[in-house]
Amino acid sequence: MRIVRIAYQRRTSYGILDGGQVRLLRGAPFSGIRESGERLRLSEVRLLAPSTPVNYWGVGFNYPSHLAQAQATSGQDIPTMPRPWHKGVGSMVGPEEPIIIPPEAKEVHYEGELVIVIGKKARRITAEQASQHILGYTCGNDVSEKASWEREGTMWRAKGTDTFGPVGPWIETDLNPHNQELTVRLNGRVENRTHTSEMIHTVYALVSYMSQFTTLSPGDLILTGAAGTTRAMKPGDVVEVEVSGIGVLRNPVQAEKLR
Amino acid sequence: MRIVRIAYQRRTSYGILDGGQVRLLRGAPFSGIRESGERLRLSEVRLLAPSTPVNYWGVGFNYPSHLAQAQATSGQDIPTMPRPWHKGVGSMVGPEEPIIIPPEAKEVHYEGELVIVIGKKARRITAEQASQHILGYTCGNDVSEKASWEREGTMWRAKGTDTFGPVGPWIETDLNPHNQELTVRLNGRVENRTHTSEMIHTVYALVSYMSQFTTLSPGDLILTGAAGTTRAMKPGDVVEVEVSGIGVLRNPVQAEKLR
Repeated sequence: MRIVRIAYQRRTSYGILDGGQVRLLRGAPFSGIRESGERLRLSEVRLLAPSTPVNYWGVGFNYPSHLAQAQATSGQDIPTMPRPWHKGVGSMVGPEEPIIIPPEAKEVHYEGELVIVIGKKARRITAEQASQHILGYTCGNDVSEKASWEREGTMWRAKGTDTFGPVGPWIETDLNPHNQELTVRLNGRVENRTHTSEMIHTVYALVSYMSQFTTLSPGDLILTGAAGTTRAMKPGDVVEVEVSGIGVLRNPVQAEKLR
Repeated sequence: MRIVRIAYQRRTSYGILDGGQVRLLRGAPFSGIRESGERLRLSEVRLLAPSTPVNYWGVGFNYPSHLAQAQATSGQDIPTMPRPWHKGVGSMVGPEEPIIIPPEAKEVHYEGELVIVIGKKARRITAEQASQHILGYTCGNDVSEKASWEREGTMWRAKGTDTFGPVGPWIETDLNPHNQELTVRLNGRVENRTHTSEMIHTVYALVSYMSQFTTLSPGDLILTGAAGTTRAMKPGDVVEVEVSGIGVLRNPVQAEKLR
């Protein structure tokens, strides 16, 4: 099942994607799917980021092919444990919304990732219990200022600047998260292709580990890490993140216009 | 004016503290104060954390007297710029709620701080404009696992573990933030006394700087940094953070009981 969040006229709503139609839901999908009976054509709605999380998490260093670059830019040792961090909720944008690069940023990279969407509150759960707390998965772009800001260590602006966190286009609830092809394209050209089976920590291990210290809330998003090397984007580019069983998250890149 | 958020029977509400009474508000205080006309006795309500922020921020290294300890535990160079980071929203608790120490934690310190409460959305504002975007101030305890977790660098569990972020008891809207005595007491004994005039970056400089990259939202909380050296707390302790013009934030310390 594919769950969307949509804007239509002045309303926002969750819905189920059904071919070219959206079957609207009553409320959020986290405590159970209740259809309102109303349908809209997909062509007449705008897709939004598919969740409104309490916390938007990232996890560092989760693909072997990304470690060398990460070590070079962050200057830190590679940890043996998962390394969660907060991607500011304010950085979140939806499909087709622009990634806006501020003039202060030197080198802003794409990072295409599989994103976990938490369904049910999780605290002190085991890896075996984790799938019961996951609603589904979406695509994410962990946009990152690599040239200088990541050295600050706290990520707040390197990864948390407004518009640096596109997610979407929808939540796929029926997906094996460790058997997907993950592809990043810049202006239509494949930049990176990897397989989610290469993750160092599985999505179940990540959710269990994080839940030992913090309560994961319905709707929370967890970026599961980038693979390979990444490159800088420039205004005018279009970046796409595709997960084979989900779909394509597409965002244009713009320069910030200061007033 | 002192703005509280309260729980009463099964409701939560904002209100204005008026002697021993609470004058309830309609909705949140951020887009204007509207009283509902209803009053409750302070003794019959429970005070909650006085805001429900989109983001709960911390700022590192903002008092000269805290730098040596911070350098020793984090092992990082001291930055010349403000160093914001995300305190997980899930760590927030209110006055009198317990700080719960998980068995995995080695050494958990108090850090008493003045907290900025954002009133109006702020993006690309100047330090001169900042006061117009601040609703008021409260007290905060930036509880931190110092012995091992802060070395991870990302703060997610060192400072973001559930219950590690007490705030309260209320929002004081009429306060000079740079002319307050800040006192921390452990079991009634003064551990630390400092003056907010010693801040390296003023609250207006902090809000302006953060707003260059991220949108600050109504209700957002910003911890403005700890002073001096701090010590570990243990189950059974009671910790108090007092800001002279605001009041006292008091929390007991407990050990986490695993089921």
